[in-house]
Amino acid sequence: MEAVKVGLLGLGTVGGGTATVLLRNAAEIQARVGRAIKITHVAGLGIANQTIVDPAKVKLTEDAFEVVNNPEVQIVVELIGGYTLAKDLVLKAIENGKHVVTANKALIAVHGPEIMQAANAKGVSVSYEAAVAGGIPIIKAMREGLAANQIQWIAGIINGTGNFILTEMREKGRDFADVLKEAQALGYAEADPTFDVEGIDAAHKLTILSSLAFGINLQFDKTYTEGISKITTEDMKYAEELGYRIKHLGITRKTDKGIELRVHPTLIPAKRLIANVNGVMNAVLVYGDAVGPTLYYGAGAGAEPTASAVVADIIDTVRQIDVPADQKVPLLGFKAGAMRDTPVLSIEDTKTAYYLRMSAEDKPGVLAEVSEVFAEHNISLEAVLQKEPNEGEGAVTLVLLSQRVQERNMNDAIREVEALDAIQGEVVRIRMEHLG
Amino acid sequence: MEAVKVGLLGLGTVGGGTATVLLRNAAEIQARVGRAIKITHVAGLGIANQTIVDPAKVKLTEDAFEVVNNPEVQIVVELIGGYTLAKDLVLKAIENGKHVVTANKALIAVHGPEIMQAANAKGVSVSYEAAVAGGIPIIKAMREGLAANQIQWIAGIINGTGNFILTEMREKGRDFADVLKEAQALGYAEADPTFDVEGIDAAHKLTILSSLAFGINLQFDKTYTEGISKITTEDMKYAEELGYRIKHLGITRKTDKGIELRVHPTLIPAKRLIANVNGVMNAVLVYGDAVGPTLYYGAGAGAEPTASAVVADIIDTVRQIDVPADQKVPLLGFKAGAMRDTPVLSIEDTKTAYYLRMSAEDKPGVLAEVSEVFAEHNISLEAVLQKEPNEGEGAVTLVLLSQRVQERNMNDAIREVEALDAIQGEVVRIRMEHLG
Repeated sequence: MEAVKVGLLGLGTVGGGTATVLLRNAAEIQARVGRAIKITHVAGLGIANQTIVDPAKVKLTEDAFEVVNNPEVQIVVELIGGYTLAKDLVLKAIENGKHVVTANKALIAVHGPEIMQAANAKGVSVSYEAAVAGGIPIIKAMREGLAANQIQWIAGIINGTGNFILTEMREKGRDFADVLKEAQALGYAEADPTFDVEGIDAAHKLTILSSLAFGINLQFDKTYTEGISKITTEDMKYAEELGYRIKHLGITRKTDKGIELRVHPTLIPAKRLIANVNGVMNAVLVYGDAVGPTLYYGAGAGAEPTASAVVADIIDTVRQIDVPADQKVPLLGFKAGAMRDTPVLSIEDTKTAYYLRMSAEDKPGVLAEVSEVFAEHNISLEAVLQKEPNEGEGAVTLVLLSQRVQERNMNDAIREVEALDAIQGEVVRIRMEHLG
Repeated sequence: MEAVKVGLLGLGTVGGGTATVLLRNAAEIQARVGRAIKITHVAGLGIANQTIVDPAKVKLTEDAFEVVNNPEVQIVVELIGGYTLAKDLVLKAIENGKHVVTANKALIAVHGPEIMQAANAKGVSVSYEAAVAGGIPIIKAMREGLAANQIQWIAGIINGTGNFILTEMREKGRDFADVLKEAQALGYAEADPTFDVEGIDAAHKLTILSSLAFGINLQFDKTYTEGISKITTEDMKYAEELGYRIKHLGITRKTDKGIELRVHPTLIPAKRLIANVNGVMNAVLVYGDAVGPTLYYGAGAGAEPTASAVVADIIDTVRQIDVPADQKVPLLGFKAGAMRDTPVLSIEDTKTAYYLRMSAEDKPGVLAEVSEVFAEHNISLEAVLQKEPNEGEGAVTLVLLSQRVQERNMNDAIREVEALDAIQGEVVRIRMEHLG
């Protein structure tokens, strides 16, 4: 059988990894697929100087539209990244009847609805396994492996940079700013680290997971996003003392009122497997009504781990290249006509437990005063730590753990606590989940 | 579109779970699949008294062959277990042109070659996600999610009973026999626990994983199997001291000489995520050349977790019911014509590191004598613990960790060490893997 022809857009880290894996593992892949897969066209800047693909066998161009418009190309692999050019290229490829594979989480999270609609209308597939958690086959698990379940919630460590920073802070007692600099030097974090440390990258991925879990459309703009730049080693230490770790999680949950969709630092029990996922590794914990908790762990970034997912998508596409679109797995896991408009809740309407830390005057009755405020708001406390001041310091540190409560209610209580005479400065608040 | 008709063989724990999940999640599943899936026929002993399916809507029979011979049934779900009857039923279903879903690991591991050949000849699918690691979608990860990789090795906790026993022994310092009794009382272990604690059940599952990883045929009879009944809390304590935990692992690895295929207790670094998989939970760690390590975690048994995998297979089958067999994922992940005859190595030809414990006379020079034997066999030691005897006891305990060495070589060295005058009794040996 003739080889399937692939056009690659972008020959950077992931593009290079994809070309390398397809070449190195060509025999293995052919044994699995039953036919060869060949990169026949590659577009990239400065492409003439690349050394990964053989220019005698592959048509090289600086103009990516040449590839998506070439009638020979059957599958377009978009690894350029970004929103604008990538979107135009993907839509053009779809218009030209080509199947698309992309690793572009931002593109899918933000322009997914338009892209999926175009692909469904044209009957081509758009695959994006590499867009979430790198090499971990979590998209496949969500769309197929767990398809028997009503998904209850997902909690994921889906940004390796953030997890590396938190791991170093915890294991070595180093400050956020200090570790961030190292992460930048190691190439884990960009010069402008906002996307990673403020949770935007994780929010892109969570948007995709939430859609696959609950059959809702992709709604990146409704995702609540809070980064890790305010996490201190002090809070990590108290969390540890109480049996918890702080992880930067993307959490999505189905409730009676709607879907929670939120990225933020989170205390989780140290005994949970996901609390032991360290360094740059990713993990996604999925809770299904039938299967219970399942966890998927692996490298969330890097040339070859990401290429592993890109090539898996290419293999899926090739295995089914002659299968009509309506007999394939739906692009977002649910039939387009069966998608739901379940509302996404604002952060004030979500419910979670809380870790709260505050400085208080060292005098009798302060804890009683604080507890009373929470009691008035029907907020139960399940643990209290009171740290006496050092000689010559005037303030005690109070650490409280609350039970689950609506965020709006907690905001009101915190405002009242902060207004107490005995409380100094702001209350530090970190959300907490038991994941049980 | 008309509902797809499913015939269920067996309405025990997993059969009941499957019926329950299909009924409870019918709307969710239809939204994902685009058509309804209905159990129309059920076979089981004492079926008239069951309360799970509605006898007004489902045809009940005690004769499973009635179901596999019924022309209305499109998918046969075999949940009877065992080798003989199950094999006849599955082969008959295939002969009748029906797709098959089974949770029967023994059947696939032992009679898989015959069954797959029959299914390939007839152009029907045989799915067995539930046969390995219960609800964890590991078969799908191996056949599809990781298809870009040359798999290097797999290490799995694939028997929940064994993992429960080892976890209790470690956490509570209880003996094997004591915990086994509790596991039996809790229903985790059978009255005859051989299948679980001697590693036969794990060997069935490992046989399947190895075939999917390396494209070799199913060869249960070549799997080396060693159980956990000789593991003591003493060895667990020494392992812990050295930074390791003891887990009952199924390990399969590709080497230059052939495939290693072995189930046995194994020391692994306590820092590895899989070392922290506790209780009845399962986890499979897969190392691919492109993706590196990935891990899949979840419930390995139980009615609904297993049903989650069975129903996922049914959904896969229904989604592709009109797709020709040659455009589907191959039954064992590789095209039938591309399977390999890579030899499976005998245990003496495998290579691993070792934990060794022995009792020695409390006199100078014993450690030197023992070390010399290993040196003569070119076996490097990487750690030594010497435990002084208590007052009035005559023997010291020596604990050694070796580097990787061929098992045959280690056997020779151990025989020589046991022959030393200063060494009392047998050397206790537990294999060790770094999984790095």
